[in-house]
Amino acid sequence: MVEESLVIMRERARQKFQDVQSLIISSLRALDSRADLKSDNWKRDGGGGGLTCVLKKGAVFEKAGVNFSEVWGELPPEMGEKLVGKAQSLPFYATGTSLVIHPYSPMIPTVHANIRYLEVDEKSWIGGGADLTPYYLFEEDAVHFHQVMKSVCDSVKRGSYPKLKTWCDEYFFLKHRGEARGVGGIFFDYLGKEDPENIETHFSLAAALGDRFCEAYLPIVEKRKVESFTDEQKRFQLVRRGRYVEFNLIWDRGTLFGLRTGGRTESILMSMPPEVLWEYDHQVKPGTREHKLSEILKQPRDWV
Amino acid sequence: MVEESLVIMRERARQKFQDVQSLIISSLRALDSRADLKSDNWKRDGGGGGLTCVLKKGAVFEKAGVNFSEVWGELPPEMGEKLVGKAQSLPFYATGTSLVIHPYSPMIPTVHANIRYLEVDEKSWIGGGADLTPYYLFEEDAVHFHQVMKSVCDSVKRGSYPKLKTWCDEYFFLKHRGEARGVGGIFFDYLGKEDPENIETHFSLAAALGDRFCEAYLPIVEKRKVESFTDEQKRFQLVRRGRYVEFNLIWDRGTLFGLRTGGRTESILMSMPPEVLWEYDHQVKPGTREHKLSEILKQPRDWV
Repeated sequence: MVEESLVIMRERARQKFQDVQSLIISSLRALDSRADLKSDNWKRDGGGGGLTCVLKKGAVFEKAGVNFSEVWGELPPEMGEKLVGKAQSLPFYATGTSLVIHPYSPMIPTVHANIRYLEVDEKSWIGGGADLTPYYLFEEDAVHFHQVMKSVCDSVKRGSYPKLKTWCDEYFFLKHRGEARGVGGIFFDYLGKEDPENIETHFSLAAALGDRFCEAYLPIVEKRKVESFTDEQKRFQLVRRGRYVEFNLIWDRGTLFGLRTGGRTESILMSMPPEVLWEYDHQVKPGTREHKLSEILKQPRDWV
Repeated sequence: MVEESLVIMRERARQKFQDVQSLIISSLRALDSRADLKSDNWKRDGGGGGLTCVLKKGAVFEKAGVNFSEVWGELPPEMGEKLVGKAQSLPFYATGTSLVIHPYSPMIPTVHANIRYLEVDEKSWIGGGADLTPYYLFEEDAVHFHQVMKSVCDSVKRGSYPKLKTWCDEYFFLKHRGEARGVGGIFFDYLGKEDPENIETHFSLAAALGDRFCEAYLPIVEKRKVESFTDEQKRFQLVRRGRYVEFNLIWDRGTLFGLRTGGRTESILMSMPPEVLWEYDHQVKPGTREHKLSEILKQPRDWV
């Protein structure tokens, strides 16, 4: 029997996450009316389902996926052990909205955001985050993105940004490359697991992040979509997208959790870039913009 | 102090694996003299090094990597536990040659092969395999490849092919897609770990596989390089290459072992295809060649 307070939290989370998905999809379409929208309502064997929306072949967005899901069922014992320390099959409930946007122009950064609510056994918690992955870095864009992230954090709990910023830098790191995925943002997980009395506050953080995602990202798109770029710069973007794939498939706990527990493969892998290149031992020349980016990725920076 | 018999085995393995690399590189160049060859001699911090050879932008081969390595040092405790059941830092020695060939034409299959010798603590063993990944399947090519694989197995131990063929089908399987990577081949691992008296026989298997790799693959290349193909067929190849990436980064123990234990990233990821596409929810039409391939990948077949 699920407690009444949890049922109410489920309802609120689902409603908010669905609203966030609608808001973001309509904002993206307003900015790029040429993109094709594909919407898939899907059911999950074992409980729940979702709505996967993918925009593609736009004037600005090469591929933008925004996924909502609400799923429940039984977790395999090894996941139960990992998440709540009980090596047994446990009931779970999860709802979330996640997105990855791959613009066509290498002058516009890729972005990811995710907000989620989970229950396993008697525990429940909130997770989420947003991070920016530029190919050609305009520092003021990184500053703007982080300023909105800081403001989101401060609106819920003053002074909470530095911790969530560092958490993001640590999470979105490719250990096998010794470099960050991008210029970061914020990341949080398991909030409320050990302090259930604060779950309301933690939920507000996820909600604020969802509500203000567009404010963090779309002004950057508007500003950079007019920048021209060369074929060579496009090629550099495709090589860097390879790093994005490497992060998602090797290190991202969310992706691996989904793929290994029978999640809907196409919805999970909507995060993959549309076109990617791997070149053996790709190098960048000292002094170039490409080199500057790779230097910044080696050592996370403070942007606000 | 390493036993004398092990020292001799190391020498023989290294020598054979280096010879196999040279043989394969020269055979590939003979077939495609237009390809650029890049050879990197590299050293590993902590012990050993290797030679990574990559052919690219050929008339036939878009990217072909053949890597030899010989490395030693201390394994992290979690790997010691996994490999020999001792959760402590253990000395290891490993040498091997591995290759992945990505032809330009979607009518020519991609191929992978690998032979390796490992020592951890007091145990030593042989591993290896070869498997074929077609985009447009010519059944006679799969039959030819498997016939050579069977002959390699029979030359060492009559009747050993079926087990190694099944092992390959089970290993090169994308669980999150419910499909095989390709039409398989043979795979073996940990040979000699529990029966050190047979290490000679097991080594002969790896050696025979290395010696006869070209016989298994190059006639297929010769035969299919004259086939014409459309842009749409090329596009299908790029989408299928995405599955290759997914296998290597999510499921391949060898790749993950290398990347997580500080292996040389560029040598490990030379297996990545040069150009790749991910399309959301890519579908194939019933009755087409693309559909036929996807049906075959769902259920491994006997080819000889």
